[in-house]
Amino acid sequence: MFIHETAIVSPKAKLGANVTVGPFSIIHDNVELGDDCHIEAYCELGKENGNTGSSPLKIGRNSLIRSHSVFYAASTIGDNLQTGHRVTVREHSQIGTDFQLGTLGDIQGFCEIGDYVKCHSNVHIGHHSKVGNFVWIFPYVVLTNDPHPPSEVQQGVTIGDYAVIATMSVILPGIQVEPDTLVGAGSIVGKDVPTGRVFVGNPAKDVCAIEKIKLKTADGGQAYPWRRHFHRGYPDNVVENWKFEFSGNDND
Amino acid sequence: MFIHETAIVSPKAKLGANVTVGPFSIIHDNVELGDDCHIEAYCELGKENGNTGSSPLKIGRNSLIRSHSVFYAASTIGDNLQTGHRVTVREHSQIGTDFQLGTLGDIQGFCEIGDYVKCHSNVHIGHHSKVGNFVWIFPYVVLTNDPHPPSEVQQGVTIGDYAVIATMSVILPGIQVEPDTLVGAGSIVGKDVPTGRVFVGNPAKDVCAIEKIKLKTADGGQAYPWRRHFHRGYPDNVVENWKFEFSGNDND
Amino acid sequence: MFIHETAIVSPKAKLGANVTVGPFSIIHDNVELGDDCHIEAYCELGKENGNTGSSPLKIGRNSLIRSHSVFYAASTIGDNLQTGHRVTVREHSQIGTDFQLGTLGDIQGFCEIGDYVKCHSNVHIGHHSKVGNFVWIFPYVVLTNDPHPPSEVQQGVTIGDYAVIATMSVILPGIQVEPDTLVGAGSIVGKDVPTGRVFVGNPAKDVCAIEKIKLKTADGGQAYPWRRHFHRGYPDNVVENWKFEFSGNDND
Repeated sequence: MFIHETAIVSPKAKLGANVTVGPFSIIHDNVELGDDCHIEAYCELGKENGNTGSSPLKIGRNSLIRSHSVFYAASTIGDNLQTGHRVTVREHSQIGTDFQLGTLGDIQGFCEIGDYVKCHSNVHIGHHSKVGNFVWIFPYVVLTNDPHPPSEVQQGVTIGDYAVIATMSVILPGIQVEPDTLVGAGSIVGKDVPTGRVFVGNPAKDVCAIEKIKLKTADGGQAYPWRRHFHRGYPDNVVENWKFEFSGNDND
Repeated sequence: MFIHETAIVSPKAKLGANVTVGPFSIIHDNVELGDDCHIEAYCELGKENGNTGSSPLKIGRNSLIRSHSVFYAASTIGDNLQTGHRVTVREHSQIGTDFQLGTLGDIQGFCEIGDYVKCHSNVHIGHHSKVGNFVWIFPYVVLTNDPHPPSEVQQGVTIGDYAVIATMSVILPGIQVEPDTLVGAGSIVGKDVPTGRVFVGNPAKDVCAIEKIKLKTADGGQAYPWRRHFHRGYPDNVVENWKFEFSGNDND
Repeated sequence: MFIHETAIVSPKAKLGANVTVGPFSIIHDNVELGDDCHIEAYCELGKENGNTGSSPLKIGRNSLIRSHSVFYAASTIGDNLQTGHRVTVREHSQIGTDFQLGTLGDIQGFCEIGDYVKCHSNVHIGHHSKVGNFVWIFPYVVLTNDPHPPSEVQQGVTIGDYAVIATMSVILPGIQVEPDTLVGAGSIVGKDVPTGRVFVGNPAKDVCAIEKIKLKTADGGQAYPWRRHFHRGYPDNVVENWKFEFSGNDND
């Protein structure tokens, strides 16, 4: 355990083995960090507000929170969290293992996020979003929730497993993006995206099946479902399953 | 008054009763905070530059500035300001009461903003913008000002009372968005938006009157003007006026 | 030299004459700052990671890094750098002189950026981008790099000299934006932009020659190439060349 001498760490916080806390960071009472977590500089963890009650912020083992980040109390996040700089995670979010949240990411709270979700820089996840497993969300994507803002109606977005939302897209309130889908860059998505389809444009339209998109590599195989070819950062047993899923099925 | 021992507060700053300043925050000379203001951690208030001269930053009573925020000198902001994390407010802005500026908000300076304006996360208000009262601006909206960048011409945007600018929209330089209007998500607005109209798309087009949009609630009343049904956070006398305005007028 | 007493500066860092370091900032071992550099509060410079090896962060003389910014090791930046607040510059970027990077700017690393490039607020420059000289990039622009995300293929964008990318545009992977071009606000650019052309829309289309756009000033001359009329902040010898280039050529 290494707590920098300038950090302010509550004696009530529960820090696992080998946790490090960087300069000028603040850990409030209501924080539970698993073993081997690293908190960089200028972070504030466990902030309370009127919604948090006495629920703790729990973050699993082997997590890395980069500098200038803020996490509220009353959220639970699995092992191997990795954030960029200056992320915000508000209260009452349930997040799985191996979550990646890029620089400037903003999780508004009251969300459910699965395992192995990867958000690139500057992603905004609105209240009541439900994100599956193995989802990719690229820079400047916004998941919205109010169908006629401002109102008291909140219709969170649902994103299915393995879906990919490309840069600068907006998913409108209550929309379901089904599994194994691709939303192209700059899309404004106001219709549900069925499994296996590619939606692009403003407003987003169904343009083709995901199998139509070829890899820009020498072999030119199918680019989607991306788990056919992209395995970096996933555990061996998961990758083995993916390989088996697509064995004898390479109709490129 | 509670100033955290790690905060750096100029003895020349004028702090009202019961002001609190969080850890590692910096308050420069030229700052005047009303009673009951709360400044969270890692904030810097009253930053001077070549434009600020000796004008102070004035912030009204009962304001909350969340962590990692920066306010320059030479702006005046009314009572009950509430910010998210990491906002920037540059010099020479005149801002009314009850302003809300979400996380990552960026007010570029030389702006005029009315009362009860609410900006969600990651909103960018360009130089010389004029925003009325009771305006709503949603995430990743940009108000621009240069009609042929880069140039010395600055044509700020004007946003009328009760207007709503939805997520990821851009208002182009010199455009007037009149009162009681809605700009849909992902719109690029290059024409003036007349009172009572809905504009959507890239480029944004006039699609209907605001009365056409129905609430997605059981009673399905009109969603706009939103002050018909959305009253949370506004003072009683304002809400009473709104109720009177729409009494006997419910032609849904 | 003025190092604030709360700053944490490695004795191994090489700081030029008259360098200042603001409150709560951190300068790691592997940093070389030229003379007259000013580092504001809450900055962290020279952060190492698995990619940086022992390469230093080098920043030229007369640079200003505003508060809450993070620079990794293993990048080289020329003289007169000027940043807004909360910028991130990752490792292995080569950046020329007089670079301006607005508030919230995010340089992902492994980039090449020329001289006199000006990025406004909240610009995201993806890995392997190549940006020429005298380029302007406006708020919420993203330069992407993966043609079918997620994948191992990285096709950085190329932006030519004097190009202007307006607000909220996305340049898709591998695209070349040639010199003396304009990409209008809110454009999703999936085709190369030839020299001297204006592209606008989602998807972006070729709409006219840059000479067609007139200044909204009394004389109504040509707005582009912008170096015809916009000279603020450039050195005299550069401006003299521009004046000569367009002398006797004012066919507006």
